[in-house]
Amino acid sequence: MRITVLAGGVGAARFLRGLKQAAPDAEITVIGNTGDDITLFGLRVCPDLDTVMYTLGGGIDEEQGWGRAGETHHVRAELAAYGASPDWFTLGDKDFATHIRRSQLLAAGQPLSAVTEALCQRWRPGVRLLPMSDDPVETHVVLAGPGLADSGLADSGLAGSGGRAVVHFQEWWVRLHAEVPAAEIIASGAADAEPAPGVLDAIGAADVVLFPPSNPVVSIGTILAVPGIRAAVAAKTVVGVSPIIGGAPVRGMADACLTAIGVATSAAAVGAHYGPGLIDGWLVDDQDKAAADDPDLAGIEVRAHPLYMRDLPATTAIARAALDLAAELAPGHP
Amino acid sequence: MRITVLAGGVGAARFLRGLKQAAPDAEITVIGNTGDDITLFGLRVCPDLDTVMYTLGGGIDEEQGWGRAGETHHVRAELAAYGASPDWFTLGDKDFATHIRRSQLLAAGQPLSAVTEALCQRWRPGVRLLPMSDDPVETHVVLAGPGLADSGLADSGLAGSGGRAVVHFQEWWVRLHAEVPAAEIIASGAADAEPAPGVLDAIGAADVVLFPPSNPVVSIGTILAVPGIRAAVAAKTVVGVSPIIGGAPVRGMADACLTAIGVATSAAAVGAHYGPGLIDGWLVDDQDKAAADDPDLAGIEVRAHPLYMRDLPATTAIARAALDLAAELAPGHP
Repeated sequence: MRITVLAGGVGAARFLRGLKQAAPDAEITVIGNTGDDITLFGLRVCPDLDTVMYTLGGGIDEEQGWGRAGETHHVRAELAAYGASPDWFTLGDKDFATHIRRSQLLAAGQPLSAVTEALCQRWRPGVRLLPMSDDPVETHVVLAGPGLADSGLADSGLAGSGGRAVVHFQEWWVRLHAEVPAAEIIASGAADAEPAPGVLDAIGAADVVLFPPSNPVVSIGTILAVPGIRAAVAAKTVVGVSPIIGGAPVRGMADACLTAIGVATSAAAVGAHYGPGLIDGWLVDDQDKAAADDPDLAGIEVRAHPLYMRDLPATTAIARAALDLAAELAPGHP
Repeated sequence: MRITVLAGGVGAARFLRGLKQAAPDAEITVIGNTGDDITLFGLRVCPDLDTVMYTLGGGIDEEQGWGRAGETHHVRAELAAYGASPDWFTLGDKDFATHIRRSQLLAAGQPLSAVTEALCQRWRPGVRLLPMSDDPVETHVVLAGPGLADSGLADSGLAGSGGRAVVHFQEWWVRLHAEVPAAEIIASGAADAEPAPGVLDAIGAADVVLFPPSNPVVSIGTILAVPGIRAAVAAKTVVGVSPIIGGAPVRGMADACLTAIGVATSAAAVGAHYGPGLIDGWLVDDQDKAAADDPDLAGIEVRAHPLYMRDLPATTAIARAALDLAAELAPGHP
């Protein structure tokens, strides 16, 4: 069985751990979001790819959900002593090594997909991990309104005339905790990006495409913004797992992203945002089971299941429910 | 009083600490060797500049003589886990931060001299530290003969036809411990390099130019190989401190370098190698005082003084002896 998963960071990585348990014999290809990527201190950092790689490879800081277990922070402290900015993005010493190695290979001319494969030769995540694209795509956030003045950015030179500022997603997410409302979220470079080698093939060859409980805007949405990917996905049996439970994101600040694109923070609204043209099945939490009767979800098979990924057995059960739903929806199923 | 010093690594850095004590009111400019510089893991490493900067700035590992005090080695271990080479060059986590910052600023288009100044804003070494050149110069070592076969390099693909291999100085020095005889030592790129901004001015404006007990071939010799520097130095009152005591280098493997250029490992031979056209005074250790009568040193004022830099007072006394000799030799002295 071939399963292809569009993946953001922490939620996707944990879901994938369950998926590997639920389908131990499946060939799993993970298409990772690279819109969160950022160049820090001259080094290329790919947070979502690394979170998947570290989590499945056994190197993740379990409590934090990202970064390496048992980290020290000497490099970061030294860079701060040199006055290097930014000081709001936390990278541990072990994590730095990944970014040094990645940057070295990129500078040597290797595309990100080849570099990711090289890094995975160490981590052996048990899935094939592909960046959505080898071309640089960066998610930018347009800030405006009263929140901007309070953010300090208005005085930082980042804010342009007219009281608007455009910041990298990470600056909004990590530095500003998404507390300044986003007026717009832009997958900068996506329109000109090509899917990385293997991406369209992996989607085309998949028996099922899964959306794990990742951010529908800046993770799944960014991957779908790469020309060719949305159409390839739409042609398949697609089952999504809602990242929203009971009107709130399980983790992260997806609500702030959904608000920016005018989508309500509810399991039903996110399912409807994807729409029946893209997804076939939508797994919601038991407390959101009313979504099954939501007219906005007409054409999408909605199932309820406990969606909190409390531990590996619970997560495995979620993955199994998604696969069961996909099997039902697959062409040729009785 | 203006003092300009041509500097290698550990020996120079320790001498400079004494010089600052001996001449607390002097304006000291240090012209650092960059021929040892190497790009590792995509990061630019400047061992001699850093040794001077860390030593004078209070960050050096005192026992080792290079690198940072209190180092950890997480980044290095991780890079090894990724299979990144080389594995024979030790960089600690704090040290990595310096190379990350330097590489970031270089990539942003700043010349090495400006980058070095920026790094020194943190370390405040109490001297003006200039790289000899902003242009890349790398010391390469030609290996040949029976030692090459034993080194393992002959099988590594580095050895070309005819049983010769050309390696970076650091590979010869650190990996091979200079145990394979050098057939030739080449300051690659030196002929096309220009002195960094401020270098010729600092030499021209100096009341005295000092050669600390640095390697006469790959440290002082490489600096002098940058067009314009030797002539500028030769026009000044120059006093050198012998790095050879009793027929052996105090530290390092200068003997292997001297052999490669056909110079004996003795205080007298090194003084004669510089020659009266370049240096005016030559400070040797008490046990080498016979050099004063060596006809090869005719035209050079030789003085004996205890030259082991056992501690700061001993080192300060050495620096003072060098300055005293320079004062005697200065034009206009009675």
